[in-house]
Amino acid sequence: MLYAEDLVEGQKFQLGEYVIDEAEVLQFARQYDPVPIHTDPGAAAAGPFGGLIASGFNTIAIYQRLIVEAVWSKVAGIVGRSMEVRLPAPVRPGATLTGQSEIQKITLRPERRDAIVIFKTQLIDGEGKVVLILVLDALIRLRPEKTQP
Amino acid sequence: MLYAEDLVEGQKFQLGEYVIDEAEVLQFARQYDPVPIHTDPGAAAAGPFGGLIASGFNTIAIYQRLIVEAVWSKVAGIVGRSMEVRLPAPVRPGATLTGQSEIQKITLRPERRDAIVIFKTQLIDGEGKVVLILVLDALIRLRPEKTQP
Repeated sequence: MLYAEDLVEGQKFQLGEYVIDEAEVLQFARQYDPVPIHTDPGAAAAGPFGGLIASGFNTIAIYQRLIVEAVWSKVAGIVGRSMEVRLPAPVRPGATLTGQSEIQKITLRPERRDAIVIFKTQLIDGEGKVVLILVLDALIRLRPEKTQP
Repeated sequence: MLYAEDLVEGQKFQLGEYVIDEAEVLQFARQYDPVPIHTDPGAAAAGPFGGLIASGFNTIAIYQRLIVEAVWSKVAGIVGRSMEVRLPAPVRPGATLTGQSEIQKITLRPERRDAIVIFKTQLIDGEGKVVLILVLDALIRLRPEKTQP
């Protein structure tokens, strides 16, 4: 397990891959973002993107799946305090999403035994287009101190 | 349909209600946020919250469902440009989520036939505790101009 002392600014985590298919786009959107551009292939084909696009919230959920596997399975996180999200391009059904997460800033707080760590993550689609930029402000544990016997 | 000219700063939209049950918490987290505090009731019971809590990304998705019904079904939105999210308290299975969205700022851009509109939304649980604060920067259409015959 990596603690805050083990992290450095500029450190990068390579994310895995996640394929989003049309069934997922439809199922997610019908439950959480029921508007025709995400739920109705026929209406979406006549719309501004010429076809169905994934809910941005579906893309954000996939971000978390990739981050759990690449970062939170290895780093002693406590909680995400806040995040800023931009979705610069639409995600199409069938896209393979991947990306990279980079540590932008680490502020150690030894008195609290934690650190504020800023991660900036970009997801790209199969054509290399950036589809999500997410800046997360998270608390990470410092390594537990050895106690006296 | 409401266009940007129909909106005023301070205007509030009351959200509907959404009950999140344990089956949804488990299903969402197993797909998008597979960590024991969201996926394993037994492990979660022994954890810091004394029980299962919903993935924050599940809460964010429910926000969108409530906003689609309360805002985007009435307002001529174009796109959300960015958002900032905080999740100040955990959501427990069985919670009834509701809330309010308030227009904080409107910047008309007649030359582009749109407006930048900042919405600040809070979701509360059944006990009135704030579980999500989300500030959205969105583009809203101006009313279409009448064309000459």
